[in-house]
Amino acid sequence: MPYTAEMIFTGDELLRGDGVNTNQSYLGERLLDLGVFATRSLCVTDDLTAIVPAIRESLARTPLVLVLSGGLGPTDDDLTREAAAEALGVPLEHHDDLLDLIRERFASRGIQMSPSNRKQAGLPRGAEAIPIAGTAPGFTITSGETLVVALPGVPWEMKEMWEGTVEPLLRERTGTGQGHAVRRIRTFGIGESLVAEMLSEFEWRGGEVEIGTKASLEGLAIILRGPATPQGQARLDGVQKRICAILGDRVFGVDGSGLPEVTGEALLRRGLTVAAAESCTGGLVAKRFTDVPGSSDYFLGGVIAYENAVKTRLLDVPEAVLAEHGAVSAEVAAAMAEGVRRLLGADCAVSTTGVAGPGGGTDDKPVGLVYIGSVVSGVTAVEELNLFRTRQQIRERAALGALDFLRRRLAAQMPED
Amino acid sequence: MPYTAEMIFTGDELLRGDGVNTNQSYLGERLLDLGVFATRSLCVTDDLTAIVPAIRESLARTPLVLVLSGGLGPTDDDLTREAAAEALGVPLEHHDDLLDLIRERFASRGIQMSPSNRKQAGLPRGAEAIPIAGTAPGFTITSGETLVVALPGVPWEMKEMWEGTVEPLLRERTGTGQGHAVRRIRTFGIGESLVAEMLSEFEWRGGEVEIGTKASLEGLAIILRGPATPQGQARLDGVQKRICAILGDRVFGVDGSGLPEVTGEALLRRGLTVAAAESCTGGLVAKRFTDVPGSSDYFLGGVIAYENAVKTRLLDVPEAVLAEHGAVSAEVAAAMAEGVRRLLGADCAVSTTGVAGPGGGTDDKPVGLVYIGSVVSGVTAVEELNLFRTRQQIRERAALGALDFLRRRLAAQMPED
Repeated sequence: MPYTAEMIFTGDELLRGDGVNTNQSYLGERLLDLGVFATRSLCVTDDLTAIVPAIRESLARTPLVLVLSGGLGPTDDDLTREAAAEALGVPLEHHDDLLDLIRERFASRGIQMSPSNRKQAGLPRGAEAIPIAGTAPGFTITSGETLVVALPGVPWEMKEMWEGTVEPLLRERTGTGQGHAVRRIRTFGIGESLVAEMLSEFEWRGGEVEIGTKASLEGLAIILRGPATPQGQARLDGVQKRICAILGDRVFGVDGSGLPEVTGEALLRRGLTVAAAESCTGGLVAKRFTDVPGSSDYFLGGVIAYENAVKTRLLDVPEAVLAEHGAVSAEVAAAMAEGVRRLLGADCAVSTTGVAGPGGGTDDKPVGLVYIGSVVSGVTAVEELNLFRTRQQIRERAALGALDFLRRRLAAQMPED
Repeated sequence: MPYTAEMIFTGDELLRGDGVNTNQSYLGERLLDLGVFATRSLCVTDDLTAIVPAIRESLARTPLVLVLSGGLGPTDDDLTREAAAEALGVPLEHHDDLLDLIRERFASRGIQMSPSNRKQAGLPRGAEAIPIAGTAPGFTITSGETLVVALPGVPWEMKEMWEGTVEPLLRERTGTGQGHAVRRIRTFGIGESLVAEMLSEFEWRGGEVEIGTKASLEGLAIILRGPATPQGQARLDGVQKRICAILGDRVFGVDGSGLPEVTGEALLRRGLTVAAAESCTGGLVAKRFTDVPGSSDYFLGGVIAYENAVKTRLLDVPEAVLAEHGAVSAEVAAAMAEGVRRLLGADCAVSTTGVAGPGGGTDDKPVGLVYIGSVVSGVTAVEELNLFRTRQQIRERAALGALDFLRRRLAAQMPED
């Protein structure tokens, strides 16, 4: 019998569509990493007559853990404390020490606590307060076999409490022998069906190491799960090593950082600077580089050459090359990368030119055709991408594709040991 | 008694965290626009023993509409047809005409239908098929007072069916007299508490026009809701007009397009081109401009001057100005905008320089301090922003702030009519 979890989210804003419930996907993934399967997730209005029966019904199904999220603030709509107490049949108790903590929190921000915050110092009898991240205290309380966890709805507060307090508790409950270990092999530029083919020698389900994939804009992760025992970890090591060998330079990391961070670190370790010349991505390559704090150590800047005149005047793309091959061509991508490297005095460069759509495609050069260029160690290289879906998806893929191309060229031309 | 809706989403992927449930927020907002309040939203595993009771319990609460989303595909995990039939106590019936439609859908894509798709032609007795958007047919069926609607989980297929079939049905059920009209007054650069203060003369709740706000990265929308009767529309017109007058140039539109589109249209109508010089936003201003298809008609390109040497060499920011005022200053923002306008030969220009964090802040120039510059009609102007939260939020706000500043300068210096 697998460990299960249920979640109850309170908040009319989630039901009115004033935002998507990112807490649910975060919690679902974190739970799965602990070997716990979320089987139900409910959003209800801020109303005791809805929340109390929902908690009772969930407890009757005896999940390992029931997560309550939201409803811990100071307003009349914040009812999770009352609802949990009522559903569990215990009184709410006021905790002066908790009130002091909340008051200190406010004071440290130079704000005086309002009288309405007093209710946040109430806990169902038997509950343990979770150390405060923001100003809304969470709590845990046991009901039969189920650990009930109440967390704020604000994502960063919720995550801090989850990772700091709830996960360690759940690891204890699931026991080391039952613990799950997870590895995420991070790739870019290969799709799910190709990966399935390349990894067809493995048993994906039902074996000792379970293999899955998770596709996102940032690339495809191959997720390995298995018992966290010493033998289990050794098996995971073995499978991870074989998969990394098969996928080769498409793997940019295991667990850890995303592609922009990994590419930045590859530049930093080699003491190199980079510049970007962008047409179809229109600033997205630079955005991806500069998303990373500290990127000014290697990213000098770039030129967005949306108009062809900018390509010729600023980046010295020869008019003849533009005329002969067109703006969307390998030749122009190469000239753009070389031009921006010279212009900004960088060690390396990347470039993009393509048809992002929805208009502008031809039979020869359809929407989604993108050339990315790179200069590494004085060597210019170009790669052709054939992307699809929407304008935004084509642009995002092309921008990350440029970073990934630079990463692969650095590894190929300037290998580390 | 207000009209209520409930939603049941099936799909283990939603519970495992392999994506966020954007369908829920979409449906919640669309329902509210019809005057229907979503009171519960449940995600359950793909399991009849979970889905059937969930449907029955929902029907017992007699919402106006119960939306089932997901589980309409051809695999063994797709159980919504069976679950709805069982919960409603009717048999599943096979429809040859529906199977023909599915077969045609596949054929039109050059794909032969697989035998597994046959089950998609089944409907609970009494159900009406919803015209197919993709290859998964949806359906509607009435149970007592409740309209049960089954839609695919794929967002674009779901939306097409919702807007094409379900909304008209719901408009009929809620009756014209009950229909809701909605206006969204779109603003940028003012927060919820300031808006609440500026609009304190209005009765926000309980009046004939209900007023609410929705904050997002793209700005703050003031949402007006009221009956869709002629008198109701006239009242909405009146409130809209008064609010727009109070909020002045912070309003960039009512309903309709986002800020990048509105700014682009303002340039297009005046026949002007624009260039961008970016420091802290690192490409985001250009990205926002070029997100819009057709932006090449007015956006020439830009320079990302992350390193100071790029600011001086390419943008002609005087070394003395950098030395005296620092890179994050009104003077440098002005010089960057003027420099990029000259360099690219554009009519107008915008610029950004600031401290995006998390490091790099000082007492004088804290994280979140951003200067945005503009050149319109030969006149240079600079605005100071004091932003907060994360690096990404500061960068996104600064980039949209630059577009908005340009929009307001265009309106002020080159008024239309």
